[in-house]
Amino acid sequence: MSELRWDPLKRHWVIIAADRGRRPNDFLAAEPPTPMMNCPFCYGNEDKTHREIFAIRPSGPPDSPNWIVRVIPNKYPVLRVEGELKSRGHGLYDVMNGIGAHEIIIETPEHAKGMADLSPEQIALVLKAYRSRILDLRQDVRLRYLVMFKNHGLRAGASLSHSHSQLIAVPLVPPVAVTELKACREFFDQKGRCVFCDIIDFELQSGDRIVRDLPGYLIFAPFASSLPFELRLFPKRHSHDFALLGDDELGELAFAMKDMLLRLKEVLKDPPYNFILHTSPSLMPRPGRPDFWSSIEYDFHWHIELVPRITPTAGFEWGTGFHINPTPPEEAAAFLRGAPVQSP
Amino acid sequence: MSELRWDPLKRHWVIIAADRGRRPNDFLAAEPPTPMMNCPFCYGNEDKTHREIFAIRPSGPPDSPNWIVRVIPNKYPVLRVEGELKSRGHGLYDVMNGIGAHEIIIETPEHAKGMADLSPEQIALVLKAYRSRILDLRQDVRLRYLVMFKNHGLRAGASLSHSHSQLIAVPLVPPVAVTELKACREFFDQKGRCVFCDIIDFELQSGDRIVRDLPGYLIFAPFASSLPFELRLFPKRHSHDFALLGDDELGELAFAMKDMLLRLKEVLKDPPYNFILHTSPSLMPRPGRPDFWSSIEYDFHWHIELVPRITPTAGFEWGTGFHINPTPPEEAAAFLRGAPVQSP
Repeated sequence: MSELRWDPLKRHWVIIAADRGRRPNDFLAAEPPTPMMNCPFCYGNEDKTHREIFAIRPSGPPDSPNWIVRVIPNKYPVLRVEGELKSRGHGLYDVMNGIGAHEIIIETPEHAKGMADLSPEQIALVLKAYRSRILDLRQDVRLRYLVMFKNHGLRAGASLSHSHSQLIAVPLVPPVAVTELKACREFFDQKGRCVFCDIIDFELQSGDRIVRDLPGYLIFAPFASSLPFELRLFPKRHSHDFALLGDDELGELAFAMKDMLLRLKEVLKDPPYNFILHTSPSLMPRPGRPDFWSSIEYDFHWHIELVPRITPTAGFEWGTGFHINPTPPEEAAAFLRGAPVQSP
Repeated sequence: MSELRWDPLKRHWVIIAADRGRRPNDFLAAEPPTPMMNCPFCYGNEDKTHREIFAIRPSGPPDSPNWIVRVIPNKYPVLRVEGELKSRGHGLYDVMNGIGAHEIIIETPEHAKGMADLSPEQIALVLKAYRSRILDLRQDVRLRYLVMFKNHGLRAGASLSHSHSQLIAVPLVPPVAVTELKACREFFDQKGRCVFCDIIDFELQSGDRIVRDLPGYLIFAPFASSLPFELRLFPKRHSHDFALLGDDELGELAFAMKDMLLRLKEVLKDPPYNFILHTSPSLMPRPGRPDFWSSIEYDFHWHIELVPRITPTAGFEWGTGFHINPTPPEEAAAFLRGAPVQSP
């Protein structure tokens, strides 16, 4: 069973995933994984995975082939649904049970296609699967935050090459989310406006960092990009919650994501990357005690953050929390804006 | 000129090192650097670097060969000493001049030796160079914090293979240091004791995470290790400032570092790693206004943190700030403790 451990100096939780129990030799094989003959995410190998949680398929029973998008539990989950959420002290330290959930969203039955190669219609179905899983997992009150993300390429942490996203549900609102939620709340408290909406206005005025300006979405390189070619995708319509999007909006978002991923693939030759969906935490209104996030509809604005993983982060970044970015976002945006990408 | 940019959502500064101006093609060469015929850090190539700032050599003028340890300015500094520290607004955002310093400590004239291969006597001279540079740079009141660190191996961010450490002086106390300094101050305020001293006591009692227990230093795997085989090296004698160490203490420290690095090299077969020296920030006492860090002698305890870079950090870590560590520190410590390493 995994556990969360608290670092009293760094003041953060770490997930010790003991079930994965990796020994020194496990780290020595540096070879990229070869394409698998028996890829567990391909048609006909549905019995090589746990039973599916959700799927989009025209017909046929669960765990049969002919699905279009399929969601399964991770075979090596970092957190598990079973058990009670408990914490305890251990000398100076603190420990919490590793309660949560860890799911895989298989984005396509086609083994060789990356997400950038999928049709906007297929990507829209993947986004529907995201929405469906988020709405379902929010019913579990132990799970305070749902992290939907994608690792593409070995250097970005993908251990299987068949295109997939992941969802990890955690029992705490994570530090990156807390910082962002507090920042936009304080901005709202001061100015009565959403900071994300202000950023959209400013970036549209300035223009230097825009990669693609679509009717419903803006893709841009953030002013303080931590990594080269970092991107953000903001919906122009204010909404705190990705899971409230209608099918039409998901269709537009799929188009925007395809555009963003194709540009990146073209300019950086299919780089490793991660993207992360930042949406509202799961709310827990309690009688007589308003939830800390109760004003979130006004102050937060869901979005997607994408980071190519083309430079290692070194000792300076680890030791300080400052990032060094050798490519100004204005230059990165110019390269991506000019990419010869045909709109789908 | 580099600049620091503030991210209003993530609430951190990023260093945009425009002098390094890396374009898409610069990221595509994934090959490890081949050993250089004309390594600028080798004897006889002293004219290929900027003029030295500091050196330990038995005799001969500056920038001549026969040095033992040599400190030079980085050819591609992320921050520069020249100029005035100024900040300004830019729409929603904030920008600060990239004032600082960036130096390279060449640890040995021998091209093929890693730090683990150096004699404890040589490592002690490297540590003396650290001390000397810290004491010198602290005189510049614009530089609030000095980050001494090492990148070993391509995946840990080293771009030249000849063994070297780096020092970057920054005009702000960085977020990782602020968190740590606040954590130990609050512990001290509550309990009247140094949290680092308490951790040493607890780890010695528990024993599970000890890698090597030396008379003056403790090497252990931290309870909430973020990465597999992460290590900390704490001096047993309470002191907030590495730069106050005497030569004897540096000699003992060199012995402990050699021991730590040899064990890691043995068990993980010369893995890429970073280490970072955490020492007291540069203090700025001002008349009538006590420095925020004025009680630091009591509450802070200098130390070294080491992270092997054998697993990529993926989208989950980036998006949450939570790390997933597949190797419990108790197991990592057992492997390292049992390594067949001959004491120097």
